[in-house]
Order: sequence, then C-alpha cells, then structure tokens
Amino acid sequence: MEILLAKRAGFCFGVKRATQMAFEAAEKDGETFTLGPIIHSPQVVQRLEGMGVKVLSDLEGIGNGTVIIRSHGVTSAELEDAVRRQLEVVDATCPFVKKAQEHVKRLSHDGYTVVVVGDADHPEVQGIVSYAEGPVHVVGSGEEAARLPNMKKVGVVAQTTQSFETLKNVVKECLLKGGEIRVFKTICDATAVRQDEAKALAREVDCMIVIGGFNSANTKRLAEVCSELQPRTHHIETAQELDASWFQGVERVGVTAGASTPKWLIDKVIERIQELDNKKKG
Amino acid sequence: MEILLAKRAGFCFGVKRATQMAFEAAEKDGETFTLGPIIHSPQVVQRLEGMGVKVLSDLEGIGNGTVIIRSHGVTSAELEDAVRRQLEVVDATCPFVKKAQEHVKRLSHDGYTVVVVGDADHPEVQGIVSYAEGPVHVVGSGEEAARLPNMKKVGVVAQTTQSFETLKNVVKECLLKGGEIRVFKTICDATAVRQDEAKALAREVDCMIVIGGFNSANTKRLAEVCSELQPRTHHIETAQELDASWFQGVERVGVTAGASTPKWLIDKVIERIQELDNKKKG
Repeated sequence: MEILLAKRAGFCFGVKRATQMAFEAAEKDGETFTLGPIIHSPQVVQRLEGMGVKVLSDLEGIGNGTVIIRSHGVTSAELEDAVRRQLEVVDATCPFVKKAQEHVKRLSHDGYTVVVVGDADHPEVQGIVSYAEGPVHVVGSGEEAARLPNMKKVGVVAQTTQSFETLKNVVKECLLKGGEIRVFKTICDATAVRQDEAKALAREVDCMIVIGGFNSANTKRLAEVCSELQPRTHHIETAQELDASWFQGVERVGVTAGASTPKWLIDKVIERIQELDNKKKG
Repeated sequence: MEILLAKRAGFCFGVKRATQMAFEAAEKDGETFTLGPIIHSPQVVQRLEGMGVKVLSDLEGIGNGTVIIRSHGVTSAELEDAVRRQLEVVDATCPFVKKAQEHVKRLSHDGYTVVVVGDADHPEVQGIVSYAEGPVHVVGSGEEAARLPNMKKVGVVAQTTQSFETLKNVVKECLLKGGEIRVFKTICDATAVRQDEAKALAREVDCMIVIGGFNSANTKRLAEVCSELQPRTHHIETAQELDASWFQGVERVGVTAGASTPKWLIDKVIERIQELDNKKKG
C-alpha cells in the first residue's frame, strides 16, 4: 500500500509559532496558564498540561504567573484583565489574527461600521470583534450581509480562515449598503492551499485520512471537502483510531492534517498505517 | 396621439447648477470663458456664446476675465493655470465630480494606487485622474481590471455616471490584486434612475424620442437602452429634426432627455410633436 502525505499537512505558521512559544514558556519557572486551549489540538494541550500548563476559561483568582495568549487570540477585555492582574503575558496570537484585530480597532476608531466575515461562534472571531469601539456585525455569507442595514462607512475584515469567495460575496453586498467600503484582506491563504492540495490528493487515492482535533474547524472542513471527492475519508485525532478494515482493497492512501496537528501525531499515524499494511501482507 | 414625458427628463442637479452659474457669470461685466463646453448641449453653449461667453480649449494668451469651470470638471493643471493667470474662477464642477477628484487626491496622497472606473476618453475621467499624485489606472470593466498588476493598497472611485454593476465587477477583481481595497461609491444615481424610467416608458409606447447632445454620453446611452426595447427610438438634439413619418400609426409617444438637455428644448419638442399630430388629424 502506497502512503501519500500532503505537502502542506499540519501546522501553519501561526500555530507553529504559538506552540513553540508555549513550550518555551512551560519550561520556565513559575505558574503558567493559557486562556482557552493554546491551539485546537487536544494532544498538544495534553502535553503542555503534562508540563504544568493549565488551561483556564478566565483569570478569576489568578494573581501571579505567566499567561499565554492562544493562536486564535482572546478578547481585548481578557487581555486587559491579564495586564491588570500584572501577569506576565506571552502573546502567541497569530500575527495575521493580530492584524485583523488591529484593523478593527482602527476602523472603528475612524468611524467605520465594522463587518467581520466569519463564524460568530469561533473564538478568533469573538476576539477580533471585541476590538471594535463602535457598531460591528459578524456575517458568514453574502445572504447574511444582504440583511445588514445601510451604513455610511463600512470597514470589512475577515476571519483568517475564511474563503475568498465568501469575502467577495460579502463585499458585493456591502457596496450596496455604504458610501465608502474599506476592505482589509486578512485571509491567510494557508487554509485554501491546504484544501486545494487535499482535494488533489483525494482524487488520486482509494482512502483518505485527515488528522486533527475534533474541535478544529479547519480540520473538520478539510475532512468535508475530501469526503466529497473520496467517500472513504476518515477524520481522526490519533493513530489509535485507525481501523484495519478501512484499508481493505486499498492500494493508495492519502494523508493530510489540519493546521493545528503537530508533526509527531502525523508521523505516528503513518507508522501505524505501515504496521497495518505489513499485517495485511503477512 | 398621447405624449408621455418621463418624470426625470433633462437637467440633473449638477448640470442645472452649472448652467445657472454660467448664465449668472455671463450677465456680469468683463470677458467670460469656459474651458471646453460648460455642459454637453450645443444649444446651451450657443445661447451662452450669444451672451459673449467664449469656449476655449486652453487659456493660452488669456490675461484677464472670468473662467467658468464646466460641470464635468477640468484637470488640476488647467485649474492651476487659471489661478496662476489671476483669472476670476467660477467653479461649476458638479459637487459629485468634485468629491471624486478629492477622494483621488487624498487616496493618492495616502499611498493608494488609484483605480478609476470609467471611460478614459471622457473629460470627467480625465479631470478626476489628474488629481492623482501617484500611480492611477482607468478601467471600463471587470475584464480590464483583471489585467491590472498586483497592488498593495488600492483606492477605487467611479465616474459619476458609471453603472453599479461595472463598479461591482471592478471591485471584485481588485480584491484579488491588493491587500487593502478602499472604495468610494462616487456614482450618482441620477443616470440609473433616468435610464430605468426611460426603459419603463419605452415598453409602454409605440415610438420613443430621446433629446440631447450628440456629444452627450449619457444621452447616447439613453437612446441605446430605449432602442433595445422600442426599435422606433429616435435621438434628436432639437425639435427641427422631428419627422412626421416617425408618427405614422403611433398612438403613444414617449419623450425623455439626457442630463444636459434644458427644459426649453424639451418643451419645443413636445410642442412640435403636437403640431405634427394636429396636421395628421386635419
């Protein structure tokens, strides 16, 4: 059985940076926390927990130590809270997400009504939105944007993982709503490139394995797009979940992974697939 | 024969204002000039010439007097030339065009590459473009915008008479080209409203008369859209051009006029159609 690994499987730039910063902080003395999971990988979070890094939902009762800001960012109120408590802050917010937050703050300050293209329930979007000082709307599609009120000056930013198509559809609607429309293309193309590669791979293989947190939106989406092209697509978090029956009659298996999946998890999956293949042969 | 006049036939806000300013200036003492025709109506220009207002292509050799800036605006160099010559300037530039010029100047100053959606040969566009202090492109369609180079910050403005559809197509392409796209919707809806009314009228009548300068882009376009719905559409400048044969078997005739057509020209056309109808009956 041939195993084909997608070139862009696993960590994107922002996640790699955040994970490195978190492991470095974990090695230092003193208590260390993250506000929410550092990245959407339960296995990475577990490793950090093993090194004493606690995941908190808020800073209630915390008086000293280091707080690591996750790659998706946090709300401005949460960041201010950490500063007020005089905690040491390691800001591992993805620089692309940070840019989106800064654009929202600036647009809002300059009198623009802000439109964030994204998923209102995603922590990245909740962080970005919190930087608005005035009116702000979150829309997930052109149809949702069509329901926005008329606005004088509209400032548009996007969740970094949004598709260009959705941004385009929202901007089209915003052109109808306002006299000035200012768009910051805060989309990071890592998501699109990863999806395109995965699609190409899914077309070539008999079975597709997508590795990543079940809480990771980009991994779930990756598994979806692969499923459309290859019904034998499986979304797993770890090698333990692999099932020998999936590879019956399979000659080529494709492997890809979400942006928050570490290399060691991918390596283990490949190793395990090889083991299962050897058993099949023997 | 019933004559139906479109509600929004004739002068738009900017043309009405420019014409009033020109006639007021013409009544004062001293030499008076316009740089290019004040509006695209040869009949109005003729009336002003009768009052001593000369149409110049440039200010070469002019040392004193009043220069009236036409509704479409002039280039920044032409305006500076008038000031340098210490002429009295009556700036009849349409305030909507002025806004577009100001946006271009500001965008350019702030480091944006400017994209003007419009017809590169139209004097309004030539005036708007002249306010750019840095790179500027004129595009007439989404296809043309697709050929633009990549840009960091893109500032988009439109010729005031452009269609919203064209602006939307250009913005869509610009979203692919730059990291920030700032759009000022400088389109004046007078053109679209006039066209929509004319189309509704063209569907109801057996013959359509469109009045306006043969050098007026908006009148030519108005005649085009009417022709598509009513083949018996005639574009005329004055009542003298009306031909009795056009009204053979016609029960309802529609009349509309471009943005630079004065009311007295429309009134004469209606009067003449009534005369021809009376002759037909008698």
